[in-house]
Amino acid sequence: MKVSYKLEESLAIRVSANSLKCVITELFQKMGVPKDDAIVASEVIVMADLRGVDSHGVSNMLRVYLDRYNDGTQNPHPDWHITKEKKASANINGDRGLGIILAPKAMQIAIDKAKENGVGVVTMFNSGHLGMAAYHAMLALPYDMIGMCMTATSPSVLPTFGRIPRLGTNPIAIAAPAKFCNAWVFDMATSVAPVNKIRNARRMGTMLPGGTIADKYGSPLMEPSQVPDDFNLLPLGTNRDSGSHKGYGLAVAVDILCSVLAGSDYGIVADRSNYRHFFAAYNIDAFSDVDVFKQNMDSFITDLKSTPPAPDCDNVLVAGDPEWQALEDRSSNGIPLHAEVITWLQETCVKYEIKSDIEILNSGRQISK
Amino acid sequence: MKVSYKLEESLAIRVSANSLKCVITELFQKMGVPKDDAIVASEVIVMADLRGVDSHGVSNMLRVYLDRYNDGTQNPHPDWHITKEKKASANINGDRGLGIILAPKAMQIAIDKAKENGVGVVTMFNSGHLGMAAYHAMLALPYDMIGMCMTATSPSVLPTFGRIPRLGTNPIAIAAPAKFCNAWVFDMATSVAPVNKIRNARRMGTMLPGGTIADKYGSPLMEPSQVPDDFNLLPLGTNRDSGSHKGYGLAVAVDILCSVLAGSDYGIVADRSNYRHFFAAYNIDAFSDVDVFKQNMDSFITDLKSTPPAPDCDNVLVAGDPEWQALEDRSSNGIPLHAEVITWLQETCVKYEIKSDIEILNSGRQISK
Repeated sequence: MKVSYKLEESLAIRVSANSLKCVITELFQKMGVPKDDAIVASEVIVMADLRGVDSHGVSNMLRVYLDRYNDGTQNPHPDWHITKEKKASANINGDRGLGIILAPKAMQIAIDKAKENGVGVVTMFNSGHLGMAAYHAMLALPYDMIGMCMTATSPSVLPTFGRIPRLGTNPIAIAAPAKFCNAWVFDMATSVAPVNKIRNARRMGTMLPGGTIADKYGSPLMEPSQVPDDFNLLPLGTNRDSGSHKGYGLAVAVDILCSVLAGSDYGIVADRSNYRHFFAAYNIDAFSDVDVFKQNMDSFITDLKSTPPAPDCDNVLVAGDPEWQALEDRSSNGIPLHAEVITWLQETCVKYEIKSDIEILNSGRQISK
Repeated sequence: MKVSYKLEESLAIRVSANSLKCVITELFQKMGVPKDDAIVASEVIVMADLRGVDSHGVSNMLRVYLDRYNDGTQNPHPDWHITKEKKASANINGDRGLGIILAPKAMQIAIDKAKENGVGVVTMFNSGHLGMAAYHAMLALPYDMIGMCMTATSPSVLPTFGRIPRLGTNPIAIAAPAKFCNAWVFDMATSVAPVNKIRNARRMGTMLPGGTIADKYGSPLMEPSQVPDDFNLLPLGTNRDSGSHKGYGLAVAVDILCSVLAGSDYGIVADRSNYRHFFAAYNIDAFSDVDVFKQNMDSFITDLKSTPPAPDCDNVLVAGDPEWQALEDRSSNGIPLHAEVITWLQETCVKYEIKSDIEILNSGRQISK
């Protein structure tokens, strides 16, 4: 059973990434965000769209971020600062700054520590949504390091045997460089599926495979079904028999390393605006030889991809493959957005008195205010 | 559907942990292992049995370890040494030393680095089986640190869509201290189930739930079934629809961090005697306040356990709960072993001219040579 959670291509209008970045940068500046930070925000959001991670791009998240600045949840000028530090570690109070802007700064601190000391680990509390976690993990790649990024979010996922959500989708992202192959980039929610995908499936009337979600009482729906109005997310593994205690445990681990280690509240009790993050950089040269590492990654990736497929199965992929393909396609052909999203963007530009030079690529039109 | 992979209590003879430790220590010395190292080995093996992790205790692993010394795979006097080092990192060549003996040394190096620098990460290659990964992660607890231990093993698990195993069961263990609650101790294989449990189920004729394993061609068995003669392990998540690409990706991540980072071969190409490991210690005091951390862990654990259960479900547990219960039971009442195992132990003691003072607790008998 194959389920598409993506926008149908026929409904999509292709838009240039650069024109989106310009508009987003200006919108963030209108929120009071300094230009340098606004540019970072636009890079992180648009990179999610370029990599095909639509759930964390313009369509879903941009309006949320603007709302959070407008209602005062997010601080455009955070006085973020390190609260405790050692040679290989730091903890940061984000002062309610948006995660997509603060996460790259935290990752850079982890990278700088790893340069000197082999490893750098940075936790951050009192921050906001950090977008696509893989973005921040990938920042380690140009430094010949393995990057890791995790974030603890508000409860939406059941613990094994439970009927009430206790854990966020708490993603784990890891990026490791290769030599000639694309970098290996892994970014998983610790739930079976993220909530945005389930909501999209409901909107589109898509049948979900058995084992994807639980009903409102916490019982896993083990047969294919439409998405009910009330549902719960399940931890990776679906039920106890097939290992949901592992997905549940991973989600707890993320909450401990992001939240409790940072001296902050864990997901169940944290204020919904207090996002907690964890960043790590592992300096390959501190452990072994960078060139050997990259050659071995090439071989590992090649060996995995050349695995003979099981009956009726596609070829074996490696983490990051679909995103590298999307990046190539969308960098050339533009980011597919629903007409409704483009209309909203244009109206938003009018509202904030910004020139909305959104370059439409698949019709050759350019829409200007 | 509930499946028991454990030895039936009626078949079990309860044996005292201390008497087992003494016998194991002597057996390891007969292999040429120095006494201090032999004591460590006995502690690690018997702690697995005490915690109810029978797959990594006396019954399954002791004879494997002895065989590996006898056939020369394992080096009883390894000249293990650090190949590269920075303030927060080290890589160790294990010189074919057994993992259960070398892992505590590596973990201590990680802990010492974390004391000074906030975090310590140690990789090790050219080592042997490290037993129950949680043992080593838990070594960080008395230092008020979070401990982590991972190990990359020989391929037995399919990648998503694949028909040939490419990944080990590659476990991830994390331990975090609490104040009044038991420490949170998580130890998961990245497969749906470990191979020993499937083999036990086959031996006992137990039906497996759907989604636990794949047939010999790589197709997941989605209906309850007996274990076929040829089978394959599945990554956590079972199939693509319910997230097996996540379990598969986690297994790859473990192989990268244990093997490729250490400059060693990854599982597909590594010599089967070359086990690779990863150890990390996170010094809580370097990030926040130890007492606040432990209080928050108590609250988090209590909140999770008090989650209302879903219909027809047991209470919500937290990672480590079953093992803490087993530890309490078995410390008092002894470790349950099958009569066949006790016979083998006695014969082995005779063979190596060791006094086999295995203290039987549930019959009051003491079996001596």
